[in-house]
Amino acid sequence: MSETGSEPVRHRPGLGISTNVGHANAQRIELRRYDLVDELIGHTSYTETLLLTVTGRRPSGAQVRAVDAVLVSLVDHGMQPSALAARLTYSAAPDALQGALAAGVLGAGSSLLGSMEQTGKLLAGIGAEVGVGTDARVAAERAVGRILDGGRRVPGFGHGLHRGGDPRAIRLLQVATELDVAAEETGWLAAVGAAIERRAGRRLVVNATGAAAAILLGVGIPWNLHRGMAIVSRTAGLLAHINEELEQPIAPQVRNALREASWLPEDRAPRGGSDA
Amino acid sequence: MSETGSEPVRHRPGLGISTNVGHANAQRIELRRYDLVDELIGHTSYTETLLLTVTGRRPSGAQVRAVDAVLVSLVDHGMQPSALAARLTYSAAPDALQGALAAGVLGAGSSLLGSMEQTGKLLAGIGAEVGVGTDARVAAERAVGRILDGGRRVPGFGHGLHRGGDPRAIRLLQVATELDVAAEETGWLAAVGAAIERRAGRRLVVNATGAAAAILLGVGIPWNLHRGMAIVSRTAGLLAHINEELEQPIAPQVRNALREASWLPEDRAPRGGSDA
Amino acid sequence: MSETGSEPVRHRPGLGISTNVGHANAQRIELRRYDLVDELIGHTSYTETLLLTVTGRRPSGAQVRAVDAVLVSLVDHGMQPSALAARLTYSAAPDALQGALAAGVLGAGSSLLGSMEQTGKLLAGIGAEVGVGTDARVAAERAVGRILDGGRRVPGFGHGLHRGGDPRAIRLLQVATELDVAAEETGWLAAVGAAIERRAGRRLVVNATGAAAAILLGVGIPWNLHRGMAIVSRTAGLLAHINEELEQPIAPQVRNALREASWLPEDRAPRGGSDA
Amino acid sequence: MSETGSEPVRHRPGLGISTNVGHANAQRIELRRYDLVDELIGHTSYTETLLLTVTGRRPSGAQVRAVDAVLVSLVDHGMQPSALAARLTYSAAPDALQGALAAGVLGAGSSLLGSMEQTGKLLAGIGAEVGVGTDARVAAERAVGRILDGGRRVPGFGHGLHRGGDPRAIRLLQVATELDVAAEETGWLAAVGAAIERRAGRRLVVNATGAAAAILLGVGIPWNLHRGMAIVSRTAGLLAHINEELEQPIAPQVRNALREASWLPEDRAPRGGSDA
Repeated sequence: MSETGSEPVRHRPGLGISTNVGHANAQRIELRRYDLVDELIGHTSYTETLLLTVTGRRPSGAQVRAVDAVLVSLVDHGMQPSALAARLTYSAAPDALQGALAAGVLGAGSSLLGSMEQTGKLLAGIGAEVGVGTDARVAAERAVGRILDGGRRVPGFGHGLHRGGDPRAIRLLQVATELDVAAEETGWLAAVGAAIERRAGRRLVVNATGAAAAILLGVGIPWNLHRGMAIVSRTAGLLAHINEELEQPIAPQVRNALREASWLPEDRAPRGGSDA
Repeated sequence: MSETGSEPVRHRPGLGISTNVGHANAQRIELRRYDLVDELIGHTSYTETLLLTVTGRRPSGAQVRAVDAVLVSLVDHGMQPSALAARLTYSAAPDALQGALAAGVLGAGSSLLGSMEQTGKLLAGIGAEVGVGTDARVAAERAVGRILDGGRRVPGFGHGLHRGGDPRAIRLLQVATELDVAAEETGWLAAVGAAIERRAGRRLVVNATGAAAAILLGVGIPWNLHRGMAIVSRTAGLLAHINEELEQPIAPQVRNALREASWLPEDRAPRGGSDA
Repeated sequence: MSETGSEPVRHRPGLGISTNVGHANAQRIELRRYDLVDELIGHTSYTETLLLTVTGRRPSGAQVRAVDAVLVSLVDHGMQPSALAARLTYSAAPDALQGALAAGVLGAGSSLLGSMEQTGKLLAGIGAEVGVGTDARVAAERAVGRILDGGRRVPGFGHGLHRGGDPRAIRLLQVATELDVAAEETGWLAAVGAAIERRAGRRLVVNATGAAAAILLGVGIPWNLHRGMAIVSRTAGLLAHINEELEQPIAPQVRNALREASWLPEDRAPRGGSDA
Repeated sequence: MSETGSEPVRHRPGLGISTNVGHANAQRIELRRYDLVDELIGHTSYTETLLLTVTGRRPSGAQVRAVDAVLVSLVDHGMQPSALAARLTYSAAPDALQGALAAGVLGAGSSLLGSMEQTGKLLAGIGAEVGVGTDARVAAERAVGRILDGGRRVPGFGHGLHRGGDPRAIRLLQVATELDVAAEETGWLAAVGAAIERRAGRRLVVNATGAAAAILLGVGIPWNLHRGMAIVSRTAGLLAHINEELEQPIAPQVRNALREASWLPEDRAPRGGSDA
């Protein structure tokens, strides 16, 4: 394909697919119809560009700052299993950094981030009911009822460690309030909390993934992508751990510890004869 | 392990490893010794936090803006193979978004980003020589000589499409100049360009990965991590493509096109007998 | 850690974890307590070793042949999206073959292999009821009733293309019968088919993933690992596609087709002013 | 696309790509032009089908047995970092088994398997010279000379632990000899060993990856795919570890040990003021 020709490309045989994310020709590169060079590079922050790219709409300054707060809250929490997976993979394949990051990304699964996504889905459901005229309090009651009747936990609430309130959640909600972002969605979250208290007779605190989900929903990120936003953020932490592995590797110690786990004692008795 | 106890943890049996990236106890979460809740969430942008997390040093405002420019320049370039891999993987496993992102990340390999990393390495080498007193022009001459004598291409220069100058590179270098970031590193890049012109007798333009490498090196990101910075940026584009796949899927059309590629004609002649 | 010393390793500080899969010291390597060198290499096939390694029990010859049939049935079905993802990733990072295989593996998700795993779970549930004295026919009726009442499809049955019967399923069940492997499990599968016919009034054919699940369950592979057995098999097909990409690359044509998808027409009208 | 129609598919608009690995229509599924149902399922082992699929040629019985020996030798070596990465990823995302296997596969990089691939490349180079009339001994001398002059280690030789000879290597070469497979390639490997001894004045033993590479090359697997064959084998070990994680999880203990690594002491002194 000649990239410089002026003939229309659309009619050539091909996949018949198109995209609205980005476009380019020999003169110009567009991202969501903005000129990458003239309108974005040097003018917009990464977070603003991330929101523009994912949602297709240019965010307000307040929305950018609220999402910055969410992303910052998720960057790293110390030596997580996913950080270890990335470091060990980097050690085994230092020429393929992308593999180490991918190994770390793969640990961002349902156990860790499922609660974020489930909170987003819960709030989106309440939002849909509110959209057709239901009172948010009633919609929250119903949703919480269905969850508790099914014997499940309400996502976004409760924390093993911070029973008095997750400080990250408190801070995220404070930032959202100050910026007047996601007012409806954080309101629904509060309605869910109140419904839990009425139904279960005890107060559960909002946790950090719950607050993050409300903000992300409020700036237009669909709940099915919330896990993905957490992964965007977490890549920074993974890269920091890979950098540390370059300078102060822990892989040798981990390998030693693992070797002990499968060390064969010299005096091990022979296998029993039944299936030998 | 009790997370609330006040006993010292260090002496318990364990891996004997530690990290300087992040720390936490029941009261406080630290990222590079900053209080996540009080000092970072709501105060720093994602890009600033990314730099702090990866390098361990709080960047200047100018450094943050220069890195924002680099990240924005790399977000997306339309429907790349890695975007397609992410979309197809999402379609096959929509409940595991992390797998779709990982599949896209795995396409960020040597063919695409090798030039960025190689430019970073080249400039770091020149920087090392300058650090021991060599003139940058002389160091660049030597380095370019070694590369051209080995029959290789000088990384960071030349572009298949934009022979008159890659507009992203021009813009990135302009941003760096305006912000007074990476002045030394972009100077070395210019010295490399001049050395190429003297040696090869023709002028090659700096390309976008070359300019990005100079800026990243200038803000303290070691060259071995440059590919990782590009991946951090690219996750935004991958997420945008996954979002588009949710709304306007292309996987069905791609599957159809692939099915044709392995369609068995009804009248295919039988396999020749020799190896049957 | 000295690997040759005779001191006991267990008492050193460490992770306190152990494994029953494999062990080694300086003299001997064991896999599931068999001597790798003296008892396995040159004596057992890969499939036999795979079963021994995963289940911890040495399989019978008939079990090995039945699992060979399952693995062979799943190796490749032409140019699948996962094969394309592997080929494109290989083209972008040819020095990291593991990344290309991983990208292909990530496409083995719920949409493709969910039915296998769900069939295994369904049969395991029937087996559990049979184990406490319920008649298989009754257990199958109940299970099918629950699924159809919930408005879901019964996994392992039905095929878009082969309405008269999936030839791979017929062949797999024939092989199992001839080898007298998984007799109970294939019986439960038949009971499920009969229950569907009574409930829904029409006959649905067993599909290939249904037959594979019955056999794998019959040889001792828990249903949660069935997807993994399919992936073991599929790596062969992915490797074949990567080999073909080495010799007859399709990545350039795919890249061209993708470039058209995000081609920016020269005469594109400017973005509407509202959010510019 | 109607899959049942008899019209030729080739002329429809599409990618214009094709494959020789597998084909299918509504009546028939072919793998390398063999009928999957009638000629392969129930007739060929997985290893035979793997070789057929990857190379396009049906292997001899002796070739299948030699490759079985190679695959068996690589299945598992206890609790490796890649096994840990797979187990931790499974624990974080138990609904996405493919992600856990992919994370394990990503650890099969240059540090671990580079020697296998480099040995294959070395032997392929000697084979190319022998093909144009050079004596194998002379070709091996030259190749070894180039490597040692460059200050590098000769791949496929030497072992940290088994200085008297790697028992797996000895066994693999014995199996190859008994089966009369890869006679030329193992001969070149011996010539390399002799050249090392003449040049370096000391005898280095062949290691397991060296022996495996010679056999794989001898049965027609190009050296660039050797790492991939090791990964096919290793998926069995990874699946065994995931199965063990289901039954006797180690992830909780590892998470505890990791938490200690990033535990924040209650009495940590505040950050120094310089960059606050």
